[in-house]
Amino acid sequence: MPDYIKNPKSKLDRFKQEVYIIIYGVNTPAGKAFDIGLLIAILLSVFTIMAETIEDIDRNFHKELMVLEWIFTVIFTVEYAFRIFVSKKPLKYIFSFYGIIDLLSILPMFLAVFISGSHILSSLRILRLLRLFRVFGLMEFMEESSKLKVALLASRAKIMVFLYTVLIIAILIGTLMYYIEGPENGFTSIPRSVFYTIVTLTTVGYGDMVPTTALGQFLSMILMVIGYGIIAVPTGIVGVEIAKAGDNSIGSKKTKNKEDNRLNDIVCAHCNKEGHRNDAEYCYSCGHHLHA
Amino acid sequence: MPDYIKNPKSKLDRFKQEVYIIIYGVNTPAGKAFDIGLLIAILLSVFTIMAETIEDIDRNFHKELMVLEWIFTVIFTVEYAFRIFVSKKPLKYIFSFYGIIDLLSILPMFLAVFISGSHILSSLRILRLLRLFRVFGLMEFMEESSKLKVALLASRAKIMVFLYTVLIIAILIGTLMYYIEGPENGFTSIPRSVFYTIVTLTTVGYGDMVPTTALGQFLSMILMVIGYGIIAVPTGIVGVEIAKAGDNSIGSKKTKNKEDNRLNDIVCAHCNKEGHRNDAEYCYSCGHHLHA
Amino acid sequence: MPDYIKNPKSKLDRFKQEVYIIIYGVNTPAGKAFDIGLLIAILLSVFTIMAETIEDIDRNFHKELMVLEWIFTVIFTVEYAFRIFVSKKPLKYIFSFYGIIDLLSILPMFLAVFISGSHILSSLRILRLLRLFRVFGLMEFMEESSKLKVALLASRAKIMVFLYTVLIIAILIGTLMYYIEGPENGFTSIPRSVFYTIVTLTTVGYGDMVPTTALGQFLSMILMVIGYGIIAVPTGIVGVEIAKAGDNSIGSKKTKNKEDNRLNDIVCAHCNKEGHRNDAEYCYSCGHHLHA
Amino acid sequence: MPDYIKNPKSKLDRFKQEVYIIIYGVNTPAGKAFDIGLLIAILLSVFTIMAETIEDIDRNFHKELMVLEWIFTVIFTVEYAFRIFVSKKPLKYIFSFYGIIDLLSILPMFLAVFISGSHILSSLRILRLLRLFRVFGLMEFMEESSKLKVALLASRAKIMVFLYTVLIIAILIGTLMYYIEGPENGFTSIPRSVFYTIVTLTTVGYGDMVPTTALGQFLSMILMVIGYGIIAVPTGIVGVEIAKAGDNSIGSKKTKNKEDNRLNDIVCAHCNKEGHRNDAEYCYSCGHHLHA
Repeated sequence: MPDYIKNPKSKLDRFKQEVYIIIYGVNTPAGKAFDIGLLIAILLSVFTIMAETIEDIDRNFHKELMVLEWIFTVIFTVEYAFRIFVSKKPLKYIFSFYGIIDLLSILPMFLAVFISGSHILSSLRILRLLRLFRVFGLMEFMEESSKLKVALLASRAKIMVFLYTVLIIAILIGTLMYYIEGPENGFTSIPRSVFYTIVTLTTVGYGDMVPTTALGQFLSMILMVIGYGIIAVPTGIVGVEIAKAGDNSIGSKKTKNKEDNRLNDIVCAHCNKEGHRNDAEYCYSCGHHLHA
Repeated sequence: MPDYIKNPKSKLDRFKQEVYIIIYGVNTPAGKAFDIGLLIAILLSVFTIMAETIEDIDRNFHKELMVLEWIFTVIFTVEYAFRIFVSKKPLKYIFSFYGIIDLLSILPMFLAVFISGSHILSSLRILRLLRLFRVFGLMEFMEESSKLKVALLASRAKIMVFLYTVLIIAILIGTLMYYIEGPENGFTSIPRSVFYTIVTLTTVGYGDMVPTTALGQFLSMILMVIGYGIIAVPTGIVGVEIAKAGDNSIGSKKTKNKEDNRLNDIVCAHCNKEGHRNDAEYCYSCGHHLHA
Repeated sequence: MPDYIKNPKSKLDRFKQEVYIIIYGVNTPAGKAFDIGLLIAILLSVFTIMAETIEDIDRNFHKELMVLEWIFTVIFTVEYAFRIFVSKKPLKYIFSFYGIIDLLSILPMFLAVFISGSHILSSLRILRLLRLFRVFGLMEFMEESSKLKVALLASRAKIMVFLYTVLIIAILIGTLMYYIEGPENGFTSIPRSVFYTIVTLTTVGYGDMVPTTALGQFLSMILMVIGYGIIAVPTGIVGVEIAKAGDNSIGSKKTKNKEDNRLNDIVCAHCNKEGHRNDAEYCYSCGHHLHA
Repeated sequence: MPDYIKNPKSKLDRFKQEVYIIIYGVNTPAGKAFDIGLLIAILLSVFTIMAETIEDIDRNFHKELMVLEWIFTVIFTVEYAFRIFVSKKPLKYIFSFYGIIDLLSILPMFLAVFISGSHILSSLRILRLLRLFRVFGLMEFMEESSKLKVALLASRAKIMVFLYTVLIIAILIGTLMYYIEGPENGFTSIPRSVFYTIVTLTTVGYGDMVPTTALGQFLSMILMVIGYGIIAVPTGIVGVEIAKAGDNSIGSKKTKNKEDNRLNDIVCAHCNKEGHRNDAEYCYSCGHHLHA
């Protein structure tokens, strides 16, 4: 928290302080209102951008949608200015992840005034949805989401091994399928066959490419059963980690109870041994008084 | 339970009491018969409504189906009337969730007499299937279903975080797919691309929209693998909660049973044996009085 | 095991005994050879039946396939006759589940001699695959498969609640989809819409029916996410039960160690109390000698 | 490790030693650089082979791709020669799994000089991707991947029972579907119907074959729900095994660390305190010699 927040000196500082609390605070009514307002503005701006891409809607309401876009651009520009204004180190915010997204979400509209066509980039505004993570995070789900993150990070190495194995299987079987089915059956290249293999292995199954030879169908069946079966692996990995993450939070309570028996790091002045009980008065090894 | 059920005073009260026990009771033969009869009537009325929408059947058996509809309407009307009749506070029932569904399932047929075409609304009767939850609940699965409910409620926050993340991913990648594939490849708008993304992420994979550009196929493959992998997350969450729900219920019973039989550490003053029951007066080994 | 197996008296009995051990035994070389031979015969007869349905193969090798069918029919008939011959109660075998399947797998070929066309029923022979369960069971996987069975039986009630909920959801949303999309978009009847809903909910996604209205697509997306998410429920249920089934087998060892401290059901002759230690000499309650 | 590695005698031996450490070592900078270089070469050669099968790319860059193929062939040939050169028992390497793959990945190109068309076999080079397992293994994921292997091996028998059951179900229902739908609806043979059944049961759902009769649709719905539900079984099996594998490895470490610090039950003869370290000589509380 910047200094002027804790000890506002001038009138400007006091104003900055108020704005800062509104933008970054969550416990005041104004802070909550700002978060919810921002949430709604982001969602509506995303709906506007989506609506523009639907031909029927765009043909009939093009003007209205453009007006809405400009309104959201103004709102986000004001928000952006205020965020810079209240930051002690504005550059740090400007070049932060969210700072860049905030800029990208307003820049295209201004550029569109000079460069025709750049308007299309305003859909970059959809990236602002990422800010919702922060808004929601501040509101409720922080703890749960961090538990999930811990569980997923802990299973990272196992998941990588798994994905890597899946990828190798997909490339090998994809190549095989290319030579079995061939371009005449729609397997026009190895990458396309690998696409088919991934589509089948993940049980998505578009059906745009389908094996027509007996051998291709047989191999595909094996592939499906593999795909159907190995989904058990990431599920098992993540499940175990989530269970552990839950246990740890319980575990911390247990540790607390055992605290009394924990050995500490105090070094005996006489024999230099450590690992004494927390409530020890004398060294276990030489009998010297520890706190003498 | 209304007062007149416990202490019926008049003849009418006694009749009400009997009907009440039939409709709401489950332990009397009449109550069970009513529940099973209602179950069958609801299922048959649903089949009737389904049959009406099948052109071949409707063309040949239109009259018969209409007769059946009227029969079920009469049955449900009588049931509705009796439910109001035996309620102490009829209005509370009428405006309850099931009360409204019960009314909606009979109203359309009566309206159809006056307003032609409103007959189609009789399919609202399918909502009565929800009543089956209660019927089944009363019969057998109550405990299991409440355990599942507890497990799902406990994992609510984690599931919300998960769904929210999935949604953000779907919208971001959906927008990207729209700009990569474009309307010429069937990705006619962002909402439609998001539809494709959800279809792929959940491994449903209709195949009505399929990426045709190399980049689109590559991104889709990543999407599939993500979808295939992150299914592990809700599975892990719910699995852990179900395990907890199970452990608690079993754990509490076990602990209870063992409590009484636990052997203590009291040492017999005569023979020095330990491991007596908590409520033991005499030593099991030498018969000496333990607390002498 | 029939009497004559244990104590063969006549020569016939001795022959019966030998055949019985070959057919039902698994630990003798002859018994194992019979099991493996039967396994191969069943698999080959199934392949023969499958091959007959492939037009190209049937056109060129119709005669050869018919010869094979007759060979397998003779083999299975001999087996059937021997099974009846060695049974103490032949009727019990004939009307048992496997007895009926064994008969159904040979009857159609004999009938085909008299009634042309009944030959097609010989594919009932595929039911003999069920016998493989027994063959495999006898050989290796008995224990594992019984553990799985225990786990699945234990989760039966929860699974029923789950399936029932899925069914109700499918019917309600299927009906809704019928009215949203209508026959003009391929949703020709409610049962067909329910078919679509199940296809989507289970993430199969054929793509033969696809929503075309915005509302239908939106509802389908919700349906997909529900389907994607609730798969966690059976997974969690079964996972927990499998974990328990595993724990129990370990648990039984633990129980063994604690055996010494278990309280027994001996009743004290003096005070009628029970729940004494297994090694108790005197009643814990009144001090009376227990075995006096 | 060959003898000459440990005790190089001649200059050649010293050279061999250096090459051996580069090829098989992972802890020296040169060894790491070799591993990463090999990794990149394999990936690039796989991309080259894939690119050749894409018609557009091959038409325009055929020459360049052939040059690349030759470069990789030379690199892999040199690598192959060196591997033979530094092996104490070259034949053992040559006939090992990776030795054969290494040979298969270079042979086709040399054969193509003499036999036109054998060039296509160079895609056997994709098998070299399998070597990545070793490269990665040496680098990072060894432990995790072995844990997964242990978990999967432990659940092998259960998984076999499961797959076997799935197969029997697929064949039985596939045969049924063939007789219900028949060749006129695309179910042209039993193997093709079994293909459909596997596609449905694993929730892949291509949609190239779709039931058109009411009975076929009903049976398919049951099949989908079965497929959707029984995925819980492998998930449960593997999850439990992964949990066990994780518990064991953690458990053993924890126990080890705590062993040394465990407090014992010796009572100090002077102050009656207990809970001393196992290796304590003096009482922590009063400093009295414990074993006096």
